[in-house]
Amino acid sequence: MEFKEKTIKKNFIYNGKILSLRKDDIILPNGAPAVREVIEHSGGSAIYCEKDGKILLVKQFRYPYKEELYEIPAGKLNDGESPEETAIRELEEEGGIKAKRVEKLFDIYPTPAYTNEIIRLYKAVEFIETESCLDEDEFLSNEWIDKCQVKKMIENGQIKDAKTIIAVLSQVK
Amino acid sequence: MEFKEKTIKKNFIYNGKILSLRKDDIILPNGAPAVREVIEHSGGSAIYCEKDGKILLVKQFRYPYKEELYEIPAGKLNDGESPEETAIRELEEEGGIKAKRVEKLFDIYPTPAYTNEIIRLYKAVEFIETESCLDEDEFLSNEWIDKCQVKKMIENGQIKDAKTIIAVLSQVK
Repeated sequence: MEFKEKTIKKNFIYNGKILSLRKDDIILPNGAPAVREVIEHSGGSAIYCEKDGKILLVKQFRYPYKEELYEIPAGKLNDGESPEETAIRELEEEGGIKAKRVEKLFDIYPTPAYTNEIIRLYKAVEFIETESCLDEDEFLSNEWIDKCQVKKMIENGQIKDAKTIIAVLSQVK
Repeated sequence: MEFKEKTIKKNFIYNGKILSLRKDDIILPNGAPAVREVIEHSGGSAIYCEKDGKILLVKQFRYPYKEELYEIPAGKLNDGESPEETAIRELEEEGGIKAKRVEKLFDIYPTPAYTNEIIRLYKAVEFIETESCLDEDEFLSNEWIDKCQVKKMIENGQIKDAKTIIAVLSQVK
């Protein structure tokens, strides 16, 4: 069966700093007209880093939820940057870890009903410790937390970020 | 350390069908002004259902990616509906499964930089088979897939949806 939805017209509503919004006129598989709201996002990278049985997490205030969340280091792709470069840069900026070798884990679609963001998940395989060096508008702290404790934090709801849960569940058996 | 960001003014940009967009004026923890783009979403529920070693997945076209994706049954909360009711309704509509008892797994924040969506993840514990009954603008097929095969589909990138990866990794050891 063919479920493809056909774009008739892309209507650009908002062009912002970290996202843009379109409201497209489309044709459904049954031939009926409909609209689809789409968030355009340049994509991001996230990186899992484990040392001596502990996982590197950053804690930061996330404005949409008005909460401080624990997450693995992550960020948006800068212009001209490859996803792997983004992962390595964010690990150094947010975590003070310089990766010598990383490994690709997964591509994640965080919420496919309305955003086109792809989060590329990496694992730091070889790395050295350096100093974190945050952007001037970034405010966060980092912590190395025992991996069994991190799994418990997922089970009891202290960790809710999707990319972090996926990285931990895939790496901590 | 206190990382809270303070809202100065909420600016409503777009009020849509499945999402709304705000661009808020805020004050950063260091006192500097900034803006935050926020997608408002009413939240959704997703439900993991396993029978005889097979997992129920739905395959549907996701417009933002222009791809057909495998996902567990899921959907947006209707007005006045509890998250558990949404999970049960979507399982029946999309999967043809009537749940008698469900269990809460996790709350997931899919991409916390810019959306306030919460995805509530459930597991169907007792259920009977009935018939799927889709909304008239929904086009999807459902399949029961062996759980080892589903894990392989995550590893090889055939399954990319975050809620589905989290449900499977947390339930299939």
